[in-house]
Amino acid sequence: MTVHRFLLELQKAQAEKNSVLCVGLDPALPSQRSRDVIPQSYATLKDENEARLKFCTYIIKETKDYACAFKANLHYLSGFRTEDHQALTKAIKDSGCVSILDCKLNDISETIQAAIFHFRRWGYDSITFNPFLGNLEAVLRVSRQESPELGILVLTLTSNPEARRYMKESYVSQGKPLFLAIAEEVKALGADGCIVGATGWVSEEDIKAVRRILGTDRAILFPGIGAQAGDPEKIVRAGRGGLLIVNVGRSIIYAPSPKDVAKHYARNLNALMLKET
Amino acid sequence: MTVHRFLLELQKAQAEKNSVLCVGLDPALPSQRSRDVIPQSYATLKDENEARLKFCTYIIKETKDYACAFKANLHYLSGFRTEDHQALTKAIKDSGCVSILDCKLNDISETIQAAIFHFRRWGYDSITFNPFLGNLEAVLRVSRQESPELGILVLTLTSNPEARRYMKESYVSQGKPLFLAIAEEVKALGADGCIVGATGWVSEEDIKAVRRILGTDRAILFPGIGAQAGDPEKIVRAGRGGLLIVNVGRSIIYAPSPKDVAKHYARNLNALMLKET
Repeated sequence: MTVHRFLLELQKAQAEKNSVLCVGLDPALPSQRSRDVIPQSYATLKDENEARLKFCTYIIKETKDYACAFKANLHYLSGFRTEDHQALTKAIKDSGCVSILDCKLNDISETIQAAIFHFRRWGYDSITFNPFLGNLEAVLRVSRQESPELGILVLTLTSNPEARRYMKESYVSQGKPLFLAIAEEVKALGADGCIVGATGWVSEEDIKAVRRILGTDRAILFPGIGAQAGDPEKIVRAGRGGLLIVNVGRSIIYAPSPKDVAKHYARNLNALMLKET
Repeated sequence: MTVHRFLLELQKAQAEKNSVLCVGLDPALPSQRSRDVIPQSYATLKDENEARLKFCTYIIKETKDYACAFKANLHYLSGFRTEDHQALTKAIKDSGCVSILDCKLNDISETIQAAIFHFRRWGYDSITFNPFLGNLEAVLRVSRQESPELGILVLTLTSNPEARRYMKESYVSQGKPLFLAIAEEVKALGADGCIVGATGWVSEEDIKAVRRILGTDRAILFPGIGAQAGDPEKIVRAGRGGLLIVNVGRSIIYAPSPKDVAKHYARNLNALMLKET
């Protein structure tokens, strides 16, 4: 059985920080949209990459005492050079947290190899993976050929309404909903965990079903708390009794005091974990 | 009804070049793998981005007379700055061909907006999209808010063996295979086309079923000819009578004479198109 380096480091960070909070690093440029963008003091820097990198390292410094992980979305970092990614992952490592590159990788095996080559060099601890094209086995094989291995978190059930049709109301041959077939594959092949939405039509029972399949030693990553209005109580009730990571993005990083908001979420999640069912 | 700018430009390029060939730009660094890497003359350049960009512009110059499109895989271009992407798309535009960014986009709507903001600025004519998370409608809306609009090609049925379980042997509520439900969504929402594998278990009947749903005025992009050993006869037989794009990557770009191999594929595909059924 493979030692899950990523999961061990995550557990260590969670114990040290006393937090299951993951902060989403999604730095938007002011030319990109009208609100939730990086502050003017960074945006005025001539180099876009430098501006986004400095903003991210500021957020890491502000929130690191209340977070166990940082999740950087690849699309928000579009145009980052290898050196920029390396500076970002170093800042995360120095903060005592683990890094997740949210790239939703999905490709044929040759390209998966190319992608993982670059992601490893960039220094990320783990990545997100979309299983629709298959290839989970290939991703795990490639990610473990290198040392240290890269953690793999698999999109299993997401919370946007249209996804319902493909993930929950689609059935594999034996009549099982697709999302449960994916969770079983994650468990059987030894990936590091599942990504499960926390809003709208994803029910507490859906999350519990994923947890039952995964067991307690694999992670469930929940995006969608904060601006996306996911229900933290539902998540914690259904997902506890095993490793969990709760991501909050915009409502922390664009707040006047990211530190205060991160602290609030971390404490609130801890209180929910201790609450009687 | 939206005018499909991308499809019009594709048709124009196909008529001018008398070719349905798309050349896959997947520049691998020598440190990345043992074979099929960019030649030493480029690799010795100090800057990795410059090395890959120069190699790609060489391939474009060599093969442009026999190609209608160039498909650049985002993972092989990992670390490219905005300026590098802009130089690449300019070279493609100057060659009279259309550009496809093979990014297999899949994300929630906020991030889709971020991704499309960057892809548009980079200058690509179209992108590939993975529908597993839903959001096809959001992608189309965002891509058409900007002018010129970005073409959207949707992964529908891919040829790696594991995908069979999720795309062909999974059924949406009314008992329809998932890949046909996706093709219907592409048609109904007005995306630019479908991506269908050409190897292994994808049958001629599967491709014909996608073509029947799409009609003749949407594209089918076939990856997987050449190194991936897809069957060009099957593709052409099943996909003709409508817009088609056939991608060849490694077997052209790493050949001693990319020009000769591109010419061979373009002519071979044209001959198959004229062949009696």
